[in-house]
Amino acid sequence: MNQNIKVTLRYDGSRYDGWQKQGNTKQTIQGKLEAVLEKMTGQAIEVHGSGRTDSGVHALAQTANFYLPETFKEQQDLAFVKEYLNRYLPEDIGVTEIEKAPPRFHSRLNARSKTYLYRIETAQKKDVFERKYCYGLGQPLDVPAMRRAAGMLLGTHDFMGYCSLKKGKKSTVRTLTKLSVETDGTKVLITFEGDGFLHHMARIIAGTLLEAGLHERTPESVTEPLHTKQRSTAGKTAPAEGLFLVKAGYDDDPVPA
Amino acid sequence: MNQNIKVTLRYDGSRYDGWQKQGNTKQTIQGKLEAVLEKMTGQAIEVHGSGRTDSGVHALAQTANFYLPETFKEQQDLAFVKEYLNRYLPEDIGVTEIEKAPPRFHSRLNARSKTYLYRIETAQKKDVFERKYCYGLGQPLDVPAMRRAAGMLLGTHDFMGYCSLKKGKKSTVRTLTKLSVETDGTKVLITFEGDGFLHHMARIIAGTLLEAGLHERTPESVTEPLHTKQRSTAGKTAPAEGLFLVKAGYDDDPVPA
Repeated sequence: MNQNIKVTLRYDGSRYDGWQKQGNTKQTIQGKLEAVLEKMTGQAIEVHGSGRTDSGVHALAQTANFYLPETFKEQQDLAFVKEYLNRYLPEDIGVTEIEKAPPRFHSRLNARSKTYLYRIETAQKKDVFERKYCYGLGQPLDVPAMRRAAGMLLGTHDFMGYCSLKKGKKSTVRTLTKLSVETDGTKVLITFEGDGFLHHMARIIAGTLLEAGLHERTPESVTEPLHTKQRSTAGKTAPAEGLFLVKAGYDDDPVPA
Repeated sequence: MNQNIKVTLRYDGSRYDGWQKQGNTKQTIQGKLEAVLEKMTGQAIEVHGSGRTDSGVHALAQTANFYLPETFKEQQDLAFVKEYLNRYLPEDIGVTEIEKAPPRFHSRLNARSKTYLYRIETAQKKDVFERKYCYGLGQPLDVPAMRRAAGMLLGTHDFMGYCSLKKGKKSTVRTLTKLSVETDGTKVLITFEGDGFLHHMARIIAGTLLEAGLHERTPESVTEPLHTKQRSTAGKTAPAEGLFLVKAGYDDDPVPA
């Protein structure tokens, strides 16, 4: 029987065209993983991620799953598989955890929540070590204003106005369970937690909160895209390099202490 | 009159052949700086660093100085110069501070001390975000043994055995005023402070302390290279990516509180 495998991945998205395989390009995280799995097993293997990450977006912990065929002789040897993947994956993609999953486990369909982090540098400095992992705004932000704005986006809303896709048949209603704005020295960190995120949703929310923090819009105005459902009423899409997928949550996760 | 300028630089050394200009290659930090200064002033300008950093070694704060010619009309406008340098230098080299220096100030000749940091990851993990800024040892270290070894290298010694250059005319006696081994989670951090460092000295000391920490040699054996003055009695040169120049100290530095 094929063995369903769940892996946790960490990647520096700087060099990649995002998570999802697109046409012929192998310059995606999914494409790199599938290429190594094919090399390892001699068979084409499809990898399912908990969700796409855009071009340039990083992951502290992305969840993915795939099936190892029974003809693959190390099918049950997860230490071997983890080591093989880490050896042959590029140095900017790493497998941090690997485990057997029930046959029907699906990283995307079973994901109950997602957590994202957006990092902003407010100091006017050229930090050569953070340049790929932070949005270099270089201007002070009104954090209390951003928090007030963030509070108004919490809960269940139609986030169509906070999404860059045209209206389709699928629901654009999502629930934001957390949207916090914290400071760490001269950095501002926005943490998002919700049952799911639409295309560009985290970056558009970050960009809109940024505008509130720069006094380019009032905190209250961030509810406008919820009512009008018009993308044009939300802020700019914040740059990809500041965004990290922190984790995908599943029902069987250990309860935090 | 030409104006002597002191700058503090931060760089990610990963892409560079070290600090010092070598023949035709511009792929050095010094070379990049001189190219931008020439572009800015229309004249060739030599930059003096507090010391060389090797290929792949980083700097949290390197000190350098150069003379701006009086014919350069923004000679006195340091904000302009800093902004110009940060705009035209590659994104992995940044100027963090700039100030006027006395005519005779020389970054290397006036340096009274240097501080280096060596970072080691002991956990067996592929940390994609740290891969260029840490030596991925992936094995546990006996930190108390490393500390015992470090204590025996403190003070004034002939460090010829801890240096990769052939015996020349110059003195190889140096004073190590600090050599600490600390832990930060699964990382081990070695901090070096001394009046000066010979070629590869910090990395050879790090490599020798590593061997003590791996029980490949006794802590006491680290004094052997001090007596024999033979490079072969010291440990391997630790990889460049773990090393950071933390600062160069000068007599006029503010006294720490």
